Amino acid sequence: MTAKRLGIVGLGLIGGSLALALKGKRGAPEVWGCDRREEPLRLARKAGAIARACTETEIAACDIVMVCVPVVRSVGLIRRIGRRMQPGSVLTDVGSVKTKIVRAGQESMADGAEFIGGHPIAGTENAGFAAADPSLFRGRTSIITPEKGNTEKAMKRVEALWRLTGARMLRMDPATHDHVFAYVSHLPHAVAYALVHSVATLDSRRVPLGYSAGGFRDFTRIASSNPEMWKDIVLQNRTEVLRATAHYRKNFTMLEGLIRRGDEKGLLAYFRTSKRTRDAL
Amino acid sequence: MTAKRLGIVGLGLIGGSLALALKGKRGAPEVWGCDRREEPLRLARKAGAIARACTETEIAACDIVMVCVPVVRSVGLIRRIGRRMQPGSVLTDVGSVKTKIVRAGQESMADGAEFIGGHPIAGTENAGFAAADPSLFRGRTSIITPEKGNTEKAMKRVEALWRLTGARMLRMDPATHDHVFAYVSHLPHAVAYALVHSVATLDSRRVPLGYSAGGFRDFTRIASSNPEMWKDIVLQNRTEVLRATAHYRKNFTMLEGLIRRGDEKGLLAYFRTSKRTRDAL
Repeated sequence: MTAKRLGIVGLGLIGGSLALALKGKRGAPEVWGCDRREEPLRLARKAGAIARACTETEIAACDIVMVCVPVVRSVGLIRRIGRRMQPGSVLTDVGSVKTKIVRAGQESMADGAEFIGGHPIAGTENAGFAAADPSLFRGRTSIITPEKGNTEKAMKRVEALWRLTGARMLRMDPATHDHVFAYVSHLPHAVAYALVHSVATLDSRRVPLGYSAGGFRDFTRIASSNPEMWKDIVLQNRTEVLRATAHYRKNFTMLEGLIRRGDEKGLLAYFRTSKRTRDAL
Repeated sequence: MTAKRLGIVGLGLIGGSLALALKGKRGAPEVWGCDRREEPLRLARKAGAIARACTETEIAACDIVMVCVPVVRSVGLIRRIGRRMQPGSVLTDVGSVKTKIVRAGQESMADGAEFIGGHPIAGTENAGFAAADPSLFRGRTSIITPEKGNTEKAMKRVEALWRLTGARMLRMDPATHDHVFAYVSHLPHAVAYALVHSVATLDSRRVPLGYSAGGFRDFTRIASSNPEMWKDIVLQNRTEVLRATAHYRKNFTMLEGLIRRGDEKGLLAYFRTSKRTRDAL
């Protein structure tokens, strides 16, 4: 069921961790790696994570190719590699936003090859092969976002690959994926960035954060995420993100109203609703 | 320097942890405990955390009394106990909001006794003596908020007590405290509650949170905090909290505008400012 040869395009945190997770695993495919920079290829070879470094053109000879580059570069790469893929092969990716990428994939594939969007829900604030970790996906959920036209065989092949890394698999259509992640990931990042931004723009002599910042520091951890990556994510998922932020802003303004009016009953009900939902996660 | 006899009013998470932290410590005072419920007194005695259970009236015989009840009950208790305190004794508390409590304390004290506000920055989502932990304050910051009229001797006595628990001490005036904590604690809680509330009020068939909620779950941990307690905190610090929420909402709306306009440069600058501030914490 698994592929014989996997090509990974982009040996950063995600691509590198995937390669390391498959290394020496029973049933794992041979891994070819491709990166526009020399350094990650050198590190990946040294770590025994890839059998061979190859070019973007050569990688289309693999029976499964995983695009692991920032979302802003995914669409172009998928278009270029997709039209060179072999019949029976599968092109997939790891981007945090799916609708646009899947549309590009569906439009670009060579005859007999399939594109299936993917999104492993794993990551850290760090980037690059140096931060790669073979256990990054263990126990985490990895999503594929098949569309009409994808075969069960191709889906199973991508899923089998991720399962070798210890991930649980989930299927979701691309639009649902982008809606859900607008709420569970993109909105929380927007909120955390805005919260830290609002403190950053205050007079620091009046809000000395340094010493008292235990809880604040934990809470705002995700505001340390990569600015380039997050700019691209919120823009690629702009429509859903703006729907989510508008809905959130309405809820936040409602809370401000309860505080302003000193509405004890209303505040209690509001906080209890939130606590009940959070406790059930 | 330390007190000979400490009275703790309210043997919940904070009061109970304080009693346990002092147990068997060299130089620690004898601890008397007072609680309107029987259960925490029973548990505290069983754990050897208090030498004696006493009434609210009796506790005023201690040379330092620490009020460890929810902020909504603090003011009333401080008024009742304050007027019975002995000359040379100190009444203090652990509330998350200081201006109102300190004002009540300053107004209510018996001649020769002093009130000094306090706020140990420690806690968990759990409550009650059953959740008490002798190491709760170790390595954490504990704040006292003295006012004009407090003597250096009384401040040092409260500080020495907290230092026995392993806490670092910090002094801050009550107004600065409430301003800073509006930003580093009350606003983040409001944001987390509102974020979960906005998800709770969505159609759950469209946003299935259960499986994908890793990051969301971590980020919203503080929305599992005690609703009664947080209702009282945001209301007691209403003016500062509403200033902070208005400033935050302005920053959030600014971010929405950048996303709506597809302003890549602006988004990058915004996220970078936040990341720089967060990384420096």
